[in-house]
This record gives sequence, structure tokens and C-alpha cells, in this order.
Amino acid sequence: MPTLGIDLGGTNARAAVVDERGQILAAAKMALTERSPAAVVESIAQAAAEAVALAGVKVAGCGVGAAGQIPGDSGVLAVAPNLGWRNVPLGGLLRERLGLPVRLVNDLAAAAWGEFNAGAGRGAQDVYVSFVGSGVGSCIIANGQLVRGAGGVAGELGHTKVIPGGRRCGCGELGCLEAYSGGHNLIALTQELLASGRSSVLNELTAGVAERITPLTLERAAEAGDPGAVEIHARAGKMLGTAIANMVTVLNPARLILGGGVLMNCPGLRRYVVEAVQSQTSNTAREGLLIAEAELGDDSGLIGAALLG
Amino acid sequence: MPTLGIDLGGTNARAAVVDERGQILAAAKMALTERSPAAVVESIAQAAAEAVALAGVKVAGCGVGAAGQIPGDSGVLAVAPNLGWRNVPLGGLLRERLGLPVRLVNDLAAAAWGEFNAGAGRGAQDVYVSFVGSGVGSCIIANGQLVRGAGGVAGELGHTKVIPGGRRCGCGELGCLEAYSGGHNLIALTQELLASGRSSVLNELTAGVAERITPLTLERAAEAGDPGAVEIHARAGKMLGTAIANMVTVLNPARLILGGGVLMNCPGLRRYVVEAVQSQTSNTAREGLLIAEAELGDDSGLIGAALLG
Repeated sequence: MPTLGIDLGGTNARAAVVDERGQILAAAKMALTERSPAAVVESIAQAAAEAVALAGVKVAGCGVGAAGQIPGDSGVLAVAPNLGWRNVPLGGLLRERLGLPVRLVNDLAAAAWGEFNAGAGRGAQDVYVSFVGSGVGSCIIANGQLVRGAGGVAGELGHTKVIPGGRRCGCGELGCLEAYSGGHNLIALTQELLASGRSSVLNELTAGVAERITPLTLERAAEAGDPGAVEIHARAGKMLGTAIANMVTVLNPARLILGGGVLMNCPGLRRYVVEAVQSQTSNTAREGLLIAEAELGDDSGLIGAALLG
Repeated sequence: MPTLGIDLGGTNARAAVVDERGQILAAAKMALTERSPAAVVESIAQAAAEAVALAGVKVAGCGVGAAGQIPGDSGVLAVAPNLGWRNVPLGGLLRERLGLPVRLVNDLAAAAWGEFNAGAGRGAQDVYVSFVGSGVGSCIIANGQLVRGAGGVAGELGHTKVIPGGRRCGCGELGCLEAYSGGHNLIALTQELLASGRSSVLNELTAGVAERITPLTLERAAEAGDPGAVEIHARAGKMLGTAIANMVTVLNPARLILGGGVLMNCPGLRRYVVEAVQSQTSNTAREGLLIAEAELGDDSGLIGAALLG
């Protein structure tokens, strides 16, 4: 029987009815106008009702992917920075409201599970998925199972330390990979470079407007040879590449899937990662490894959540 | 019913009859005088027969831990540097000789499985085991299962790159963790320091005899303040510590188990690792983490192999 998948972001709740093979039968979206748990549950329920009505089928259960920390199968969103929540029993609230069994997982785990079952990971049993967007995240699938960790926070590649004691990360710690290679930080570093007045290339690309800067702006400035941009861009790409190559060495997956806005939109950064995996991964782990791009785009989380539901 | 565990090293084959709780009922050992597959199978069979006779019980199956690369459940030792073997179907040969079902796994996986079931990992479902001896290895247990990887080489922490393009490792690649922190390389680096004549402390500790050097010699020279020794020792400890802390961040295990000759015998190096895990692991992964020392010593591999058999 089809199931319901929910992708809960910071601004929207998306719902889809998905069949057993991971095909979306119908989907709907609701903006989160208010962020109290009760209001969010209501928005999710409306999107879900619309998707179910559009699909015209019954659903057997519901999976929810949400950005945040979810210990084990607790159904509790322990920390959700996007929504400003702490310890919200979202799984239980939705179970009551929807009248369906609900499984709550981290959004990256849902997206990885979607790619694993219906996207770039099809047919493999051991997969490592790296998502580089505003943050740097990842998900491990081993022996055909999600690795969620004892506290439900496995996969936090962005908070591995690349320069112990280095640049401060949004998480408060020092020297995290994300502080050098996450999209949010790349934008901040590029804005600092623009503000310094040292980069005429950047000034030209943005007409001096810091708000126009994206990671791709940085990549274009680096490609145009701006020394400051080259430095930030190369450092980001090399650190990301070595970190991902090292995970491939330790996990020995059959497939490495690259996804997330930064890796999908910045071919130069993606090239650093692919080159590092090809040159730095141990010989034995590289044998038989396939590097693939995520295939399902924004739908991976919806599909994966539904397949877990 | 009890099972048979085999630990196949480079110089000995050990066999033990182990009960369901991981207790050794009887054990025996045979030196490997000849290293042809046929001769090694015969030595294993003799040790096994003696252990079974001593225990006076029937065994249901046999697990074998061997140093080398074993793809999946192939039963084939694809590469075994200690024995100079390539593509030896050891599982099948032993099955025929012993008349028992045989499961062949990597020696570190067997040791980690022993610690997980009957040692420092008891009661946890997600465990990361770091073994630092002559090499640097590790084993991941997630969701209560061994993570062996698509090609059977998961866990190779020693071949993650800490300085891309850096010091050449025994594996032929550049900048591997093992090249800076493995026991074999620590001895080589310390011997180079002795040969340089720059270290009077080292000269005193060894009476100038390079062959006396162990990783503990290095640690003693570092503790005595020898600048060259301090540099090698601190670098080894810090690199090891950051690498292990990063694995804890990504895997979010309930327990980190530290084992292997170098970590067990060099408290100074162990201290670097514990401090790095405490200070560099992400806050979320550190919550609820228990750091433990391996409990079963040399028996972990025998016990783990038997419990897999």
C-alpha cells in the first residue's frame, strides 16, 4: 500500500503519497506561517490531506523527515534549530492528528534513504551520501540499513575537525569542516572578502551587493583568478574532498552519492571532491566504488520519508 | 552449542572452544612452520582438534579471524600480507578439513566482535573500536551488526589521509595516518632520530641499539623532554586523536573502545586520544559516549571468531 512522506523544512511542510517503488503519486505543500508545534502539525495535516485526496488512495503509514536531532525511534525532535524547537514529540502529535503510524527521522537520513531505494543508490547495500548545502551533512547506509547512531546524530561530517582550534563554526566549536566548506560559511567568507575591498572581480560580479553572493559567486570569482576567492574556494574543496575520501576509506561503500545545493550547483567544488576521492581514498576501498550524483533532487526527502513510514 | 574460534596470525594459529556467552572452555596453539595454504590448514586443524579434545564438547561451527582482506562472505583471503597469500579460499579449505561450517572474517572484525559481545562493548548496539598496534585499524559496529563494507575492507582508519601528499605509508600511498601514528612507523621514526645522533636521551635509553626501540621507548624519550621525540610523539598522538574523534562525530557510537599494543602500552598516546575525543568530538555525539579500554586482550579475536562461527 502507498505511504505518506512528509518533508518538514524551516519554511514549508511538503507531503507526498508514494508507492512501494518510490514513485510520487501526488504531492502538496503548505507554508509554515506560524511555528508553534500545534500550528506546524496543522499545516502538515493539511498538506497531507491534500496529497491523499489528490492521489485518491489509502495510505498505510507516514514517515517524516525533519531537520534536527532525533534520538533513536523516540519520535521526539530533541533540537530543531530551524523551527526553534526543543524536545517536541512531533511523532506522537502527528500520530494523533493523522490517525496513522508515524516514523520521525532526520531530514538527511530521509533524503539518503530516498536515494538509496529509488535514486542513485539503487541496488547497493553499502552507501555513503554526502550532502553539502548551507551545512555539510552525510548519511551512512551499511548492510542495507540506516546508521543513525546511539543518539540519532550519526553522519555529522560537517562537525568533524579539520583544523583543531581553527575557525569558529555555527555550532560553537572550533575548526569544523563546515566552518570552511559549508555554503553558509562560504557566503560569509566571500562577503568578508568583498567588504575588504581587495577583490575587484567580486565587486564586479556582485555590483558590490553582498546579498547577491552565493557559493557559485565565489566559484566564479575563483575561476576568474581572484587570489582571495581562489584561496577560499580551493581550501573549501580540498578539505571537503579529503574528509569525504577518508569516509570512503573507512566505510568502504559500494557507492558514494554527492548531493546538496553546493555540490550540485558548483561543479568546481564537486571536482575537488571527486579528485580527492580518486586520489586519496585507500586503494582497496576505491576498488569497485561508484561515485554518483543524487538523482531525486528535492524529492529525495519526501520519497525516503514515505519509504520509512 | 559451543563453537570453535580460530585466530590466524603470521606465526601462529590459535584455536579455542567458546561457549554462547563468549567464555573460552579450552584453547590450543600451533606454530606455523610452513606457510603454504595446505600446511596452514593442517596446523589450524591440529590446534582445533586439540582444543576440542581438551574441552570435551561438540562444536556447532567455526569462525576464523585472519589478517587480510576478505570480500563479503566469500571465504576467500584475497590479500594476506603476513602469509604472503593472494586469493586463497581458506574458508572452503577449512570447511572440508574440519567438516564444520566455517565463516572467515578479518582479524580486527573478529576482535571487535569479541569485545562487542563479551568485552568492553557488552550491552551497546553502536560501537567503534580503534586498534593501534603496528598498524592503525578500526571496526564499526552499527545497529548491532558488523560493518564490513562492500569489499570487506571497512575500518581502515590507518589509511585515511592526514597530510595529503605527505609521508609515504607501507601501503604505498602518501600521508596516511598510519605513516605517522602506527607502531611500525613510530619505531622507524624513532630509529631515524637515534641514527641522527641528535638525541642523547634516546641514546641513553637504548644504549645506542636501534633494535631495542619500541613505541614505549619513544614515549619515555618524549617524557624526558627530548625535543625530537616530543615532536614525533605529540604529532602521532594528536593525529590519532583527531582522526578517532572525527569518527566518533560521524558514527555517534554509544561506546568507543581503545585497544591494540600501542594504545594499551603507551599511556601518553592514549591520553592524547582521550583528550581529543573529549574536546574535538561534536557536542551531540559526545553526549552519552563511553570511552573504554579493550578488556579481552589477545583473546578478543578468538572469542569474536567463535561467536561469528
